[in-house]
Amino acid sequence: MPFSARVRRSPFFERSHAAGAKSYVVYNHMLLPGYFTSHEEDYHHLKSAVQLWDVGCERQVEVSGPDALRLVQMMTPRDVTGLTEGQCYYSPTVDADGGMTNDPVLLRVGPERYWLSLSDSDLLLYCKALAGGLGLDVRVHEPHVAPLGIQGPKADELVRRVWGEDAASIGFFRFCRVDVNGTLMVLARSGFSLQGGYELYFEGLEGGDLIWDQLMDAGRDIDVRAGSPSQIERIEGGLLSYLTDMTQEHTPFEAGLGKFCTMDRETCCLAHAALLRKAEPVRQIRPVEVAGARAPMLVQPWPLRDRRGLPVGWITSCVWSPDFARNVSIAMVDRANWEPGTELVVETPDGPRSALVKSEFWGRT
Amino acid sequence: MPFSARVRRSPFFERSHAAGAKSYVVYNHMLLPGYFTSHEEDYHHLKSAVQLWDVGCERQVEVSGPDALRLVQMMTPRDVTGLTEGQCYYSPTVDADGGMTNDPVLLRVGPERYWLSLSDSDLLLYCKALAGGLGLDVRVHEPHVAPLGIQGPKADELVRRVWGEDAASIGFFRFCRVDVNGTLMVLARSGFSLQGGYELYFEGLEGGDLIWDQLMDAGRDIDVRAGSPSQIERIEGGLLSYLTDMTQEHTPFEAGLGKFCTMDRETCCLAHAALLRKAEPVRQIRPVEVAGARAPMLVQPWPLRDRRGLPVGWITSCVWSPDFARNVSIAMVDRANWEPGTELVVETPDGPRSALVKSEFWGRT
Repeated sequence: MPFSARVRRSPFFERSHAAGAKSYVVYNHMLLPGYFTSHEEDYHHLKSAVQLWDVGCERQVEVSGPDALRLVQMMTPRDVTGLTEGQCYYSPTVDADGGMTNDPVLLRVGPERYWLSLSDSDLLLYCKALAGGLGLDVRVHEPHVAPLGIQGPKADELVRRVWGEDAASIGFFRFCRVDVNGTLMVLARSGFSLQGGYELYFEGLEGGDLIWDQLMDAGRDIDVRAGSPSQIERIEGGLLSYLTDMTQEHTPFEAGLGKFCTMDRETCCLAHAALLRKAEPVRQIRPVEVAGARAPMLVQPWPLRDRRGLPVGWITSCVWSPDFARNVSIAMVDRANWEPGTELVVETPDGPRSALVKSEFWGRT
Repeated sequence: MPFSARVRRSPFFERSHAAGAKSYVVYNHMLLPGYFTSHEEDYHHLKSAVQLWDVGCERQVEVSGPDALRLVQMMTPRDVTGLTEGQCYYSPTVDADGGMTNDPVLLRVGPERYWLSLSDSDLLLYCKALAGGLGLDVRVHEPHVAPLGIQGPKADELVRRVWGEDAASIGFFRFCRVDVNGTLMVLARSGFSLQGGYELYFEGLEGGDLIWDQLMDAGRDIDVRAGSPSQIERIEGGLLSYLTDMTQEHTPFEAGLGKFCTMDRETCCLAHAALLRKAEPVRQIRPVEVAGARAPMLVQPWPLRDRRGLPVGWITSCVWSPDFARNVSIAMVDRANWEPGTELVVETPDGPRSALVKSEFWGRT
């Protein structure tokens, strides 16, 4: 626990902490719970029931006003002109050179009002600089909005009980508004897992405990528990973690996110020209299986080498998958070695191991 | 310890960790050691000997090229046109509304080359947005530069032994270049303590252990130890912590940093007009003494109230000072109550206590 107020807490912190969070990481200058029972038990539970996640650290940048759409489009190569109210877009953001600055979910929450729901970087500063430097007619700020994850196969049932069938039946990456103790708030079908679920964009600094308790009470018989994003589940499924698997040093093409980049027509994205030049990457993210028994914990990237011993990339995330009984990993691999079936060597802290490039991540059934 | 590579480590991490770091905080997406023996023993040692601090988390934003000075000046209200090579300026940075975005030390490391040595925010993103959005003729990037703090009253002696009298006699907020195993690197008389000392701006990813060992060997008889910024010492002395004591919600005037704001002539700082309007703050940082025995640990700001019970501000940092035998604190106090001698009430987690506004921080002898 930090010895200062520099690291902030969400409106769900007290409840989530009381539910037994055993570790924390810092994310967007806030506390994010690490695990509750154990990483593996949390993972099994996520895949079979439903969890509440204090992901208040997924901060929003709110952009509103006449130039809001223009400003948002300056930051992302995804064509967001067609985004309608009630819809979410996964929208990687880039600097003028095409380096990734974040990979937010973009929500259009009003005619001229957007939320960029952030991964771990101060995109607020980037956005403010563009708005202020160019004199755009927008307001840019970080509102008091803290997402609460409702994740797992029984999330639909829980949402149905609390907010009814209409809420429970919204489509993927769509949102509706639900009544949270007298205030309408955004409920989206989204979240950092492949198990299905929702994110409630809780507004305000008070009352997080009330909705937490209501959800817990409503789901007691379906074993709702406190949880947090599972490293095991996300690596299996190839859910990328910004700053872990890709950084400002990488383009969206290198991160395998080319399908989110509109290159066929001019947009006002500052990186349009740069990304046109970089559309054929020489390295890209790949699923890689690491041979042998449970690999050690990865806390710094592990170098990948080809059979001649030459460096060909890095494993950035690696974990033992209980369900697939192997070490699953996410790697950035050079082009000459990224074909599925390529055999490489990874240097783990415990020594070298065989590593096999795969065609698909695991668990995307 | 984080369960991912998202949080980075400096070239001094292995040595500092082996020296017994007992906790870590995350700062600029990197690990910063919390304490070694105990917060209080570390504090006494810092005030009597010399410590090496792994403050590699003080990241640099490097701005270079023909428009470098212009870009830097757009971000700070301090007039930096007179900054010469070999000099450092404490330069609060602000957004277009005058809200603080960081409070870096600015170093001019070449004719058209600057380093902004950061506190805890991604100012790199702000800087890149201005450069890219306005098409400035600059390069903006984060170089592999990790500061190593050499802090304490015996820091001069240690630097003299390793780099000679010329290095040891540089003036406050000046820097020279010293030989670090074959490479010239910046050594500045600066650091996040009031005990005197230096910061070595170590360049590269390898070799941090070598210079660490050399400094440790050279200072063995003067009791050099591993350490880290002391919360006790910095609160006593009123050294502000960005995101703890002031945020984007505050102007430099509110943070008591008006003397670093040039308002008498037009600069290209984007916030010039906004800061002119805000030059008379209605709240400002003050030293506040909290009555009674050792106060609980502050992990979220504590509300301050006047005698009628009305809210008048917040204590943002508070700690028991062994040397002054009282609870010293940093607070943001409304104008009607900021005069020294004003008696307030602070709501601590353990209940209300008397709080007294002071005229000076402690330990600035």
